[in-house]
Amino acid sequence: MAARSVNLAVIPGDGIGPEVVAEGLKVLAAAAGDDLAVGTTEYDLGARRYHASGEVLPDAVEAELRGHDAILLGAVGDPSVPSGVLERGLLLRLRFAFAHYANLRPVKLYPGVATPLADRTPEDIDMLVVREGTEGPYAGMGGVMRKGTPDEIATQDSVNTRMGVERVVRYAFAKAAERPRRHLTLVHKDNVLSYAGDLWQRTVRAVGAEYPQVTVDYCHVDAAAMFFVNRPERFDVIVTDNLFGDIITDIGAAVTGGIGLAASGNVNPEGDFPSMFEPVHGSAPDIAGQGVADPTATVLSVALMLEHLGLPAAARRVEAAVAEDLQVRAKEGGERTTAQIGDDLAGRVAGQG
Amino acid sequence: MAARSVNLAVIPGDGIGPEVVAEGLKVLAAAAGDDLAVGTTEYDLGARRYHASGEVLPDAVEAELRGHDAILLGAVGDPSVPSGVLERGLLLRLRFAFAHYANLRPVKLYPGVATPLADRTPEDIDMLVVREGTEGPYAGMGGVMRKGTPDEIATQDSVNTRMGVERVVRYAFAKAAERPRRHLTLVHKDNVLSYAGDLWQRTVRAVGAEYPQVTVDYCHVDAAAMFFVNRPERFDVIVTDNLFGDIITDIGAAVTGGIGLAASGNVNPEGDFPSMFEPVHGSAPDIAGQGVADPTATVLSVALMLEHLGLPAAARRVEAAVAEDLQVRAKEGGERTTAQIGDDLAGRVAGQG
Ligand SMILES: CC(C)[C@H](C(=O)O)[C@@H](O)C(=O)O
Ligand SMILES: CC(C)[C@H](C(=O)O)[C@@H](O)C(=O)O
Repeated sequence: MAARSVNLAVIPGDGIGPEVVAEGLKVLAAAAGDDLAVGTTEYDLGARRYHASGEVLPDAVEAELRGHDAILLGAVGDPSVPSGVLERGLLLRLRFAFAHYANLRPVKLYPGVATPLADRTPEDIDMLVVREGTEGPYAGMGGVMRKGTPDEIATQDSVNTRMGVERVVRYAFAKAAERPRRHLTLVHKDNVLSYAGDLWQRTVRAVGAEYPQVTVDYCHVDAAAMFFVNRPERFDVIVTDNLFGDIITDIGAAVTGGIGLAASGNVNPEGDFPSMFEPVHGSAPDIAGQGVADPTATVLSVALMLEHLGLPAAARRVEAAVAEDLQVRAKEGGERTTAQIGDDLAGRVAGQG
Repeated sequence: MAARSVNLAVIPGDGIGPEVVAEGLKVLAAAAGDDLAVGTTEYDLGARRYHASGEVLPDAVEAELRGHDAILLGAVGDPSVPSGVLERGLLLRLRFAFAHYANLRPVKLYPGVATPLADRTPEDIDMLVVREGTEGPYAGMGGVMRKGTPDEIATQDSVNTRMGVERVVRYAFAKAAERPRRHLTLVHKDNVLSYAGDLWQRTVRAVGAEYPQVTVDYCHVDAAAMFFVNRPERFDVIVTDNLFGDIITDIGAAVTGGIGLAASGNVNPEGDFPSMFEPVHGSAPDIAGQGVADPTATVLSVALMLEHLGLPAAARRVEAAVAEDLQVRAKEGGERTTAQIGDDLAGRVAGQG
């Protein structure tokens, strides 16, 4: 009998979402082995449901999701749905409702992976971006007046609370304290966004006093974006605002071999709500249904989930399987389908068990 | 006698600012030749003045600056001045007061220049970013309540007006129409920042109707940041919001050989106010006074200024001199001082005259 059981909500979503999620679950099953019983409930959410019923996330579904230990999400979005409807109505709604304040995005170059950067090796790029996930410019505040006239004004308000900033800053310090370099960089734009920037700066200073072993510095977001390209070794752990985190982690994905490998966890560290794990990539409707999507980002998101669920050994096995697979890929090349990559990864995980 | 005269305000500023501005003026003099009489008035603004008198930009100085044909600025900022004081009090104040709504930032890889990107050639990277310069998240709106308490809230409001968006969008379309590819990309984040994003989208559609020869597309800022690294050839002209433009142009600087080469113009296209030209880099206090700063970004900013002043032939000569110098640098290497680079560039410009 399994020592533990996990009750997982699965949202395959649109486009390549269902394809990559299937492989993520395959690898999860291999990692679970006999120790962990994984129960899954699939939820049909995304463009298909929106078109069929007009629903994005019914309250009853949100309540059901809340009852799970974690959520695995593929991708939502389709050009047929107006921009923002699914993003705000589903993805951001869940991040906010489930207090996913720590949006974890490792930026790590695996050996063998081709980076668009010349002369960069895995030693140079190994950071963890902790992106705030519940407020800032994503709050949805603002409005429009005199719409459609020459005098139109549209505002968009970033809302930053001490509570919201402090909890993610504290989480980032704790993460930094666990890593060998023990360095934390606040990324913001405090010379222009002075109200929000000042709150972030004061909060980092205050929480930093509790972590004397962690060194701290500050970097403007524009400079940070540049350093991701020409000085990535400068960073260890980064803590940043929701929007800045969105932008820099996509640069991070680019320099570590592309969006096909970038994993993320929308984490509620206290476990008051289920955390949600998803690849950084979108639904990629142009390649959907062809079996060519790389499921690796989803598989690495499963590793983040295992870690969060208190199963670090299983998480390490999944990461090791990915690292091996990427090395083999680099040496042997060869095209594999989405399912073949998933099978290979699951096989490697099982072999290590 | 010179056919034309130009009345230039010069703000050398802090750190390496005075060093690079001196070389910019040298090259300007060479480009002006006998056709253009350049008169300069130097203004002592920046950290030094702030410490000496507490003044950042006295109203009387702003009024004097207004009387010039253009402004050449080196860099302002020093760690001894609280973050934001000079940026908001001088740089942003001038951009706003002088309606520098078109912040022009070419992102162009010159032959011979080492890019951190592997296998990229000048054919791949040749874009023009037109960044809005007078509103958006830079408006300075927002505030703080319950400061210093656990219940603190800090807001930061992006203000976007139809007038402000339309004028920069129209300018970007005109620029795109002049270029061989005639393509314009709107970069925003309309799936999250829905009020502002919708205004930008509608404005691009409306103005686009006047430019049927220009093809248009849209790219989220996070994807654009990634494409700057792994698909830069995707872009021709970009129009974007003040903050997004700040971030992506620093990535642009990184991929085209670094901040030492990145030029910018804060342009008031109508000429109601003097436009201001400045390198994208900052005051770099760590290398100030050593004669090692690269003045090329300032020299390329002088080329943008000449173009803006209606002297395109002189602008082309300066750009050609820079292109030659960068090729020679790539072949021969060798360390030159700031002044030597300026002398070499001025010599090349004069030689072409
Ligand atoms: C789809 C979008 C709302 C989302 C975001 O902006 O957070 C995505 O870009 C991400 O990074 O997860
Ligand atoms: C110094 C700062 C205020 C400025 C900006 O954010 O616009 C700079 O980064 C730039 O890009 O010119």
